[in-house]
Amino acid sequence: MSQIIDKYQKSFALALDTLSWEGKPSSLYHPAEYIMSLGGKRLRPILTFIGAQLYTEDIQKAIPPALAVEIFHNFSLVHDDIMDEAPLRRGKPTVHEKWNDNIAILSGDMMLIKAYQQLEKVDNNLQSTLLPIFSKMAVEVCEGQMLDMDFEKRETVTSEEYLDMIAYKTSVLIGAAFQMGALVGGATPEDAEKLYTFGLDLGISFQIMDDYLDVYGDPEKFGKQVGGDILANKKTLLQIEAIKRAQGTSHEAELIKWMETSDQPSQKIQAVTQIYSQLGIDQYALQKAEDYYHLALEQIEPLHISDEKKSEVKAFAHWLFHRDR
Amino acid sequence: MSQIIDKYQKSFALALDTLSWEGKPSSLYHPAEYIMSLGGKRLRPILTFIGAQLYTEDIQKAIPPALAVEIFHNFSLVHDDIMDEAPLRRGKPTVHEKWNDNIAILSGDMMLIKAYQQLEKVDNNLQSTLLPIFSKMAVEVCEGQMLDMDFEKRETVTSEEYLDMIAYKTSVLIGAAFQMGALVGGATPEDAEKLYTFGLDLGISFQIMDDYLDVYGDPEKFGKQVGGDILANKKTLLQIEAIKRAQGTSHEAELIKWMETSDQPSQKIQAVTQIYSQLGIDQYALQKAEDYYHLALEQIEPLHISDEKKSEVKAFAHWLFHRDR
Repeated sequence: MSQIIDKYQKSFALALDTLSWEGKPSSLYHPAEYIMSLGGKRLRPILTFIGAQLYTEDIQKAIPPALAVEIFHNFSLVHDDIMDEAPLRRGKPTVHEKWNDNIAILSGDMMLIKAYQQLEKVDNNLQSTLLPIFSKMAVEVCEGQMLDMDFEKRETVTSEEYLDMIAYKTSVLIGAAFQMGALVGGATPEDAEKLYTFGLDLGISFQIMDDYLDVYGDPEKFGKQVGGDILANKKTLLQIEAIKRAQGTSHEAELIKWMETSDQPSQKIQAVTQIYSQLGIDQYALQKAEDYYHLALEQIEPLHISDEKKSEVKAFAHWLFHRDR
Repeated sequence: MSQIIDKYQKSFALALDTLSWEGKPSSLYHPAEYIMSLGGKRLRPILTFIGAQLYTEDIQKAIPPALAVEIFHNFSLVHDDIMDEAPLRRGKPTVHEKWNDNIAILSGDMMLIKAYQQLEKVDNNLQSTLLPIFSKMAVEVCEGQMLDMDFEKRETVTSEEYLDMIAYKTSVLIGAAFQMGALVGGATPEDAEKLYTFGLDLGISFQIMDDYLDVYGDPEKFGKQVGGDILANKKTLLQIEAIKRAQGTSHEAELIKWMETSDQPSQKIQAVTQIYSQLGIDQYALQKAEDYYHLALEQIEPLHISDEKKSEVKAFAHWLFHRDR
C-alpha cells in the first residue's frame, strides 16, 4: 500500500511545484507559499487521487480537486491557528506568529479563493457538480470549528455532539476529497456519494483513534506527547464518556479533583488514565472507532469497480487506520 | 433615475429576505445575519440588476449574482473591520466588537463561501463563466486591502500605486457586479467585458470624488466629517499629489509641520485645505475623477443594446457621480 501512497505523494508534489504564489503584493502571497511549503503528509490530496484512480487511468484529472483540497486545508490551518493562538505548526512558527494576525486573515482569505480557482480547471460540466460539494464541505468545516470553540466554553458536551463536531471539523473534508476524486475519474453520482460516506466515516474513526492514542498510544510511535489531552482537560470522546460513566460513582470526585490539578502533570496523566481504564473507556473508544471503520467499509462492496480495486480501497483504509500517527 | 434605483432596491430587499442565516451553530450565523441587516445602500447588487436589465426583461435572473456580490461585500467589511480595528460600521458596533475577533474571522469565512453558493443557482453553463470572474475579483480585493495596509506603513506612495490600490480594493467589485449582471441577462462576453471596464472606471472615479469631497465637500451633505482624511494624514490621491507638488517649494515645510500636528484639528484642516488649493489639488482631483468618468462612458457606445438603454446607463452613471455621499 505504501508504494501506492508514495507514488501519489510524488505526483502531488510535482503538481504543488507548478502552483505559483508569485502574485503581488508579496506580503499577501509569501505567507501562503510558506504554509504550503511546510509539508505535512498531504493525506487529503492523496485521497482525491485514490478516488480518481478507481475510475480512470488518467490520474492527471485529479490534480485540480487535489490542489483545491490541499489549499483549502492549509487556509483552514492559517485561520484556525489565529483562533487557537497556536505558536507552532509542523514545528515552525505559524503564519500569524511569523507575520501578524491581519496578514494571516487576509492571506487565508486569498487561499480560500485560490482553492475555488482550482475548480475552474475541471471540465465545465463537472464544475457545477464539484462546486456545491466543495462549498457544502467548506461551510461545514466552519461550523465544525465554531462548534469546537463553543464546546470549550460549555460545561457539558454529549458524545453525540462531539462526534458531530469532529465529523464537520475534520471528516467532511476527507469525504469530499474522495468524492471529488471519484467524480473527476468518472464515477456515477451514486458511487461518488458512497465514497463520500466512506471518507466521512473513516475520518471519524481516524479522529477517535487519535483521541484514543493520545491516552493509550505508544510514546515511541505517537507523534505528540501521550497524555497531552488529559493535561489540557480537553473535551475528547474519552473524557466526555468518562465523566458520564463516573457520575454517581467513587470515580466522580477523583476525576474532578485531577481535572482541577495542574501542578502534578505525570501523576495526573497516570491517575486519569487509570480511571479511564477502570471505567472501560479504552474499550469504549476502540469499539467506537471500529464501528465507524466498519461503517466506512460497508460503502465499498456496492461500488461499480473491480474486486481488485475494492481490495485496494480496503487495503488503504487498513493502512490508514493502523499506521502510527 | 432614482425611481429605477428604488425599484431595484425593493427587488433586492425582497431577495435578501429569502436568504436564511438559520444555520447551526447560531454563533456562526448570527453575526452574518447582523452585518447583512445593517443596511447600507445596496449599491453593488443594484449594479448587477442594471447590468442584467440591459439584456433581459427577466430581472429575477440577476438575483443570485446580486446576492453573491452583496454577501461578498459584507464578508470583506467584517474582515476589514478586524484589520482596521474599526469600532463602528453604519453607526452600529462592528462584528468583532459585538462578538470577538475569532467569531468575526470564522463568520466572515462562512460568508465568503455562502457568496460562492449563490453562483450554484445560475444555469450550469453560466456557472463556469461566472466562477472565474468572481474569483479573480475576490483575489484582487484581497490584494487591494493588502496594498492599502502596506501603504500605511510606507513613507511614499505614488499616485499610480494609489490608483491601482483603489481599483483593486473597491472598483473591481463594481466592475464584476455589472459584468455578472450583464452575463446572466444574456450579454455577449464582449459586451460584458465592456461593462466590467465601465464599472471599474466608474468605481475609480467615484473613489477619487470621495477623496475630493472629504476635503471640499459640503458639510451639510457629506456623510462623514469634512477634513477627516486630513486629520488622519490619510494617504489619498490629494495628499499624495500635494506632497509631490510641494517638494522644493515653501509649502513643503508647511505641509510637514501640519502633518505632525494633532492638537489643533480645525486649524489643521483649514491650513492643509488652503495649501491643497494653492497647489491646485482641487482641480487636479476633479480632473482625474472626470477623466475616469469619461473613460467609463466610452464603454457604453459600442454596446449591443438600444439607444434608450444606453441613455439609461449614462443617466445612472451621472446619478452615481453627482449624488451626495
